[in-house]
Amino acid sequence: MKRFMDEDFLLSGETAKILYNNFAKDLPIIDYHCHVSPKEIAEDKRYANITELWLGGDHYKWRAIRSFGVDEKYITGDASDYEKFRAYATVMPKLIGNPLYHWSHLELKRYFGYEGALSINTCDEVWELCNAKLAEPDMSVRGIIRASGVEALCTTDDPADSLEWHKKIKEDGFEVKVLPAFRPDKCLNCERLGYSDYIKTLAKAAGMQITDLKSLLDACIARLDFFDEMGCCTADHGMDTAVPYADWTCLKQIDDIFKNALAGKEISASDAEIFKTYMHAFFAGEYKKRGWVLQIHYGPLRNVNTKRYKALGPDTGFDVISDRSSIESLAKLLDLIETQSGLPRTIIYPINPVDNAGVGVLIGAFQSSDGSGIPTIYQGSAWWFNDNIAGMREQMISLANLSAFGNFPGMLTDSRSFVSYTRHEYFRRILCDLVGGWVDDGLYPMEWEDLKEIIEGICYYNTKALFGF
Amino acid sequence: MKRFMDEDFLLSGETAKILYNNFAKDLPIIDYHCHVSPKEIAEDKRYANITELWLGGDHYKWRAIRSFGVDEKYITGDASDYEKFRAYATVMPKLIGNPLYHWSHLELKRYFGYEGALSINTCDEVWELCNAKLAEPDMSVRGIIRASGVEALCTTDDPADSLEWHKKIKEDGFEVKVLPAFRPDKCLNCERLGYSDYIKTLAKAAGMQITDLKSLLDACIARLDFFDEMGCCTADHGMDTAVPYADWTCLKQIDDIFKNALAGKEISASDAEIFKTYMHAFFAGEYKKRGWVLQIHYGPLRNVNTKRYKALGPDTGFDVISDRSSIESLAKLLDLIETQSGLPRTIIYPINPVDNAGVGVLIGAFQSSDGSGIPTIYQGSAWWFNDNIAGMREQMISLANLSAFGNFPGMLTDSRSFVSYTRHEYFRRILCDLVGGWVDDGLYPMEWEDLKEIIEGICYYNTKALFGF
Amino acid sequence: MKRFMDEDFLLSGETAKILYNNFAKDLPIIDYHCHVSPKEIAEDKRYANITELWLGGDHYKWRAIRSFGVDEKYITGDASDYEKFRAYATVMPKLIGNPLYHWSHLELKRYFGYEGALSINTCDEVWELCNAKLAEPDMSVRGIIRASGVEALCTTDDPADSLEWHKKIKEDGFEVKVLPAFRPDKCLNCERLGYSDYIKTLAKAAGMQITDLKSLLDACIARLDFFDEMGCCTADHGMDTAVPYADWTCLKQIDDIFKNALAGKEISASDAEIFKTYMHAFFAGEYKKRGWVLQIHYGPLRNVNTKRYKALGPDTGFDVISDRSSIESLAKLLDLIETQSGLPRTIIYPINPVDNAGVGVLIGAFQSSDGSGIPTIYQGSAWWFNDNIAGMREQMISLANLSAFGNFPGMLTDSRSFVSYTRHEYFRRILCDLVGGWVDDGLYPMEWEDLKEIIEGICYYNTKALFGF
Repeated sequence: MKRFMDEDFLLSGETAKILYNNFAKDLPIIDYHCHVSPKEIAEDKRYANITELWLGGDHYKWRAIRSFGVDEKYITGDASDYEKFRAYATVMPKLIGNPLYHWSHLELKRYFGYEGALSINTCDEVWELCNAKLAEPDMSVRGIIRASGVEALCTTDDPADSLEWHKKIKEDGFEVKVLPAFRPDKCLNCERLGYSDYIKTLAKAAGMQITDLKSLLDACIARLDFFDEMGCCTADHGMDTAVPYADWTCLKQIDDIFKNALAGKEISASDAEIFKTYMHAFFAGEYKKRGWVLQIHYGPLRNVNTKRYKALGPDTGFDVISDRSSIESLAKLLDLIETQSGLPRTIIYPINPVDNAGVGVLIGAFQSSDGSGIPTIYQGSAWWFNDNIAGMREQMISLANLSAFGNFPGMLTDSRSFVSYTRHEYFRRILCDLVGGWVDDGLYPMEWEDLKEIIEGICYYNTKALFGF
Repeated sequence: MKRFMDEDFLLSGETAKILYNNFAKDLPIIDYHCHVSPKEIAEDKRYANITELWLGGDHYKWRAIRSFGVDEKYITGDASDYEKFRAYATVMPKLIGNPLYHWSHLELKRYFGYEGALSINTCDEVWELCNAKLAEPDMSVRGIIRASGVEALCTTDDPADSLEWHKKIKEDGFEVKVLPAFRPDKCLNCERLGYSDYIKTLAKAAGMQITDLKSLLDACIARLDFFDEMGCCTADHGMDTAVPYADWTCLKQIDDIFKNALAGKEISASDAEIFKTYMHAFFAGEYKKRGWVLQIHYGPLRNVNTKRYKALGPDTGFDVISDRSSIESLAKLLDLIETQSGLPRTIIYPINPVDNAGVGVLIGAFQSSDGSGIPTIYQGSAWWFNDNIAGMREQMISLANLSAFGNFPGMLTDSRSFVSYTRHEYFRRILCDLVGGWVDDGLYPMEWEDLKEIIEGICYYNTKALFGF
Repeated sequence: MKRFMDEDFLLSGETAKILYNNFAKDLPIIDYHCHVSPKEIAEDKRYANITELWLGGDHYKWRAIRSFGVDEKYITGDASDYEKFRAYATVMPKLIGNPLYHWSHLELKRYFGYEGALSINTCDEVWELCNAKLAEPDMSVRGIIRASGVEALCTTDDPADSLEWHKKIKEDGFEVKVLPAFRPDKCLNCERLGYSDYIKTLAKAAGMQITDLKSLLDACIARLDFFDEMGCCTADHGMDTAVPYADWTCLKQIDDIFKNALAGKEISASDAEIFKTYMHAFFAGEYKKRGWVLQIHYGPLRNVNTKRYKALGPDTGFDVISDRSSIESLAKLLDLIETQSGLPRTIIYPINPVDNAGVGVLIGAFQSSDGSGIPTIYQGSAWWFNDNIAGMREQMISLANLSAFGNFPGMLTDSRSFVSYTRHEYFRRILCDLVGGWVDDGLYPMEWEDLKEIIEGICYYNTKALFGF
C-alpha cells in the first residue's frame, strides 16, 4: 500500500526506484516537440493566476470539464477565472484514473509545493497558494523553464513564420535552447479553403512569387534554409484522418493540381492525395539533405462537432481518433521517400493505439545505416490520447517486442503549457517501473552498466544524438 | 493464494474489499438493457429444471458446448434436459478462463447455494440440487428478480409491440419497475426481406395507414407516445456490421426509397444507408424531445454460417464481430443529430474492443450542458463478447483515461436469463478491484467520501439519474 | 525478486511451478508448422559456428541488428562470421524486452550450457564455447532434434516438391517423424510474375499437362495424393495483405482467369480475388476428404522496402503487418467452404493482434461435430511478431474468454532454426504461469486432475489428436 503520489510514485519495486533515482531523475529535458508560444518565452510572460496558466488554452482540461455537463461559460466562456478554476476543482475527484488527475497534482507538487488533493473542498486554498506562488519573481515563463531542467525545446512553426521571437530569445542570450520546428501542413492542404491566401503569405515570407509547382518548391527551399540557419533540426508533418498515398503519372499532373488550387478551384480528394504524397516526399528529401528529423503525427479526425466548431474554432477539444487504415499507405510513402532520396531520420506517432503493432513492425523495414550508428526510424512515444500510464506502457512493451527498445528516443510533451515538463517525470517513472519490473521478474539480468545506458539513453542521450543537440 | 470464488472473489487488496463491502455490494440493481421476456414476468414463470433455466435460450452456452465438437442434439436438439445439462457439465472444466465459468458458478452459489465446481463428476448432484431448489415457491421469475435486489429493468420491445405484458405486470402491482424499451431496428432495415410486411404490422399497431415517409414518421410518433405513456425512457438501436452514414439530397429521396421498399423493390446498399441515416437521426430527435436515453449497439456481423442459420435461425450463436470501420460514420451521425435536433442522452456500445479508444474519445466531442449537471453521452460497459474480466477492465481503464470515469453508468446484463443479475456482482467486484488497486498503488488518495461517491455512482446512482428513475 | 532466467523463469506463483514441472516440462514436442529444411535433416547437417546456426537465415535477428543502424555488411553481407556474431552480441543488451533476448539466452542455456548474459563483453567467450560445443558429435541437426524431445515435425513444402529429402529421412529410419506439409500458395497467386512458369513446374511434378482449370485441379489432386502417401496431414495457406473473398458467376469465369494467367496476361485484382477464393475452397474440400488440417496464416504485407527487396530478395526482414480488414472476408470464405464441402479441421493465425477478438469469436460460429469429439476450428498461437510474452498472454486470455481454452492446440515454432524448440519451453512456462495465476487468484478451483488435463492437452495431447499423430 503506497501513499498518494509520494516519492515512490509509480515505482513499485526496488530496482525501479534505483533506476529512477540514480539514472533518470536528474537528467536534463529535451522537449523535441511541443506547442508552447515562442512569443511568451521572448516576453518572459507572467501569469495572473492559476486559471490563466492551467485553463487558458488546454483543450484536454476543457474536454474533461465538459464531460460533466458543465456549461461552456465556465470552460471557455465569460465566467471569472476563479469560477473556471472552481469548475475544474469540482470535477477533479471524478477524474480518477485520468492522466489529468496525475498531471495536475504533479504540477501542484513540483511548481507550487501543494501536497494535498484538489477538489471543491480544497479549491480555495489551492487558488490562493498558486496565485501567490505565481506572483513570485521566478515564476515567469523563463523561470519555469529553467527550474524544470530543460536543456532544449522545439516549438512548432509555420514555414511562413518570421521566427522573430526565436531571434529575440537568441539575442537575449536565454540559456535554454529554444529552436523552431518546421510544420508545413498548410503548404500541403491544397483542398482547403484559404489555400491560395496561405500561398501568398508564404510567397511573401520567401520574398518571391509563387505561380507554379517549381516556384512553390523554390519558396519552400528558401524557408527551409532560413529555418536551418535559425537552428531548426526537425520538421513535423500532421496527417489528418489517414496517411495519404497516391501515385502520379508525371510532374505536370502535380503542377496542374497546384495551379488549380492556387486559382481557388475545388480540388478532388484523389488530387489532394496525389499532391500531398508528392509534397511529403519532397520535404522528406530536403530534410534528409539538411540532417533534420522528420516527425509524422497521423490519424486525428478534426472538428467533428460542427456546432462547436462554429462557436469555438479549431483546437478546442473536438478532435477525435480516426479508425481509417494507414499502415499500408504509410509503408508506400516511406518506400517512395527511401527510393527517391533516402529516408531522413524519422519518428512516427500513430494516434490510434491499435496501430502500435503496425508501426512497431514497419519501422523495422526501413532501418538503414549511415555510418553514424544512429538508427534511421523510430516509433514515437504514446501520443495525445494515449499519453497516459496504460498507453505508455502499451507503447513501450509493443516497441520492445517489435524493435530495439534501447534506442527509443523517449518523451516529449506535445504541450501548450510551460508546466507540462512534469510529464517527463511521469514518463521516466513509468519507464523505470517497467524496466525495473523486468529485472525483478528475472526477465533481464541485473547488469547495472547496461541498465544505466538504457535508462539514460531513453530519457536523454538517444534524443540528444538523434537530433544532434 | 485465494480460495476459489470465496467472499473476496476478484478483490485483491484491502481497499478493494472495503469499497465492495461498504459501498457496492448492497446497492439495488437497475438493469437498463436486457432481453428477458415480459411475458414470463407477467406469468411469473417457473422452471421445470436447471436446463430450462440455463440452456433454454442462452446462445453463449450453446457456442461454448459446440466448441467441444458436441453434437447439436445435446445443445438445441432433441436430447433430454438431463443429457443437455450433462453435456454442459462435461465441458465446464475446460472453459477455464471463460466468463461462463464464473457466471455459472456465481449463479450456482447465489441462487442454489452450491459451493463446489461443476463437472462431469458433480453433474448429478448439481442437477438434483438445482431442480429441487427450482421447485421451491420463491424460485419463480418474480421471486428470482426480487431476491436479486432489482429495482428496475428495461426489456427490449418492437415499436409494433402491444406491451400487453407490461400492462399486466403494472396492473399486478409487481414492486419491481419493469419498463419497455423501444427497439426500432425493423423500421430501419428497409433492404431486408419482409420489410413491407413489417410496416403493415406497424401500421396496424399505430392504427393508421403507412404509405409514405410522412405517414411512417407519424406512425412512429404514435408508437413513441404510446411507449412513453407506458413508462419507456430509453431506446436501443442495433447497427449491424457498421454504423451507417450517408448524406441525402432532399426529403423526396428518402420518401422514394421508403416507397420502393414498401413496394417490395430491391433497395441498394447505398439507398439503405441513406434511409437508415435519416431514420436514426429522426428517432434521436424524438428521444431528445421525450427525455429518453438512446443506446447504440453497433458492429455485429450476423448469421455468418449459412448452414446453421437455415437449420436454427437467428440468435443461436452464429453472430460474430465485424471489423469494418465505424468511428468516422459514427462521428458524422452524431454530428447530424446534434446539428438537427440536439443529441439526446446517448450510450454507445462498440462490439469490437479495438474501438474502445475511438469511442472513448468521440464521446468527449459531443458533451454539452442542459443545465442538469448530467453529461450527454457515454461509452457503455464492455458489451457481449467483451463482457468478461479482461474486457471490462480494458473498457474501464480506457474510459478513465479518455473521459470522466466517475460518470460511468456501469453495468447492464443484456441477458435473456433471470439469473444473470449476478453479473452485476461480477462487475461490481471488478470495478472495486480496479479502483482499490489505484488507491493501494498511490495513484489516487484515500479520500473515502470521493471513493464512496464514485463507486456508488457507477454501481447505481449515475444510472438512476441518467434514466430519471 | 527473481534471478535472471533461472529454473522458475516466467513462473511467478507456486501453482505455476507445479503445473510446469509436473505436467508441462517433460512432454514431447510436436512442431506442427515450421520452415526447417528437410535437406538439412536428411544430410544431418553440422554447423561450422554459432553464426551459421543463429544468423545464417534468421530475419528476426537481422531486423533487430538493423534497428541499431548497423551496416548490412555485418548482417547479411561479406563480413566474417565472427564479425557478424560480434554485431549481434553488441546490440543484445539493448534488445531488452524483446523475445530475441529470451530466445537467444534460452538457446545458450539449453544447447550450450551458457548461463551468462551475451554482450560485447562476453562475445568472445560465448563464441568459443558455442563453437566448441557445435563440434561435438551430438550437435548435428538430428542430434539437436533428438535432444530437444521432438516427437514429430511438419516442414513446409510446395506442391511441386519431389519430397526426396523426406523419402531419404524415412529410409534412414530417423526416429523422429518428419512430415511434409502442403503449401499451395504459388498455385493461387495467378496475378504474380512467373505464374505460368510455376504451373509448368507443377505439371511436370504431377506428370500431366495443365491447360485449363480442370487439368489444374487434376494435377493438384495428384500432388495431394502424393503428399498424403508421404504422410502429410496438414496444409498451410498464406494469405498476404488480407483474406481474399469474391463471388464468381460460373465455373467458366474461373477457367478463363486461369487460362489468361497461363497465357501470361495481366490479371486484375478482382479476378485474382475470385480465382483465389475458388482455389482456397477447392483445396479445403480436398483436405476435408483426406482428414488434413488446414492452417491459414493471413495478413502480412510483404517486401515493403523496394530498395532492400531488390538487393536482398524476399524473406529477409522487410515484411510487415497489414491493417486491412479480413474478418468479414474470412467469415465468407469459411461459410463458402462449410456450404460447399464441409470445413476441414482448421487453424487460423492472424498477423495483426487487433484481430484476436475477431478470430476468437469467428471460430465459434463454425464449430461442428463429426462424432470424434474433436473440435473443427481453432485460433492458432500468437504468430510471428506476436510470438512474445505479451502477445502470447493476450492471445490466450482472448481465446479463453471467447472460446474453449482447454481445446487450444498450443505452440509451434514457425521457425527456420533447429534450436528454436526452446520456444516450446518458453510457451509452456507462459501458459503455466497464466493458468497458475488463475488458480492462485481464486478464479479456478485447485482441481489437479482437470488442471493436468488442460496443461497436458495444450502442450501436447490436443495437437496429437487434432493432427492424428
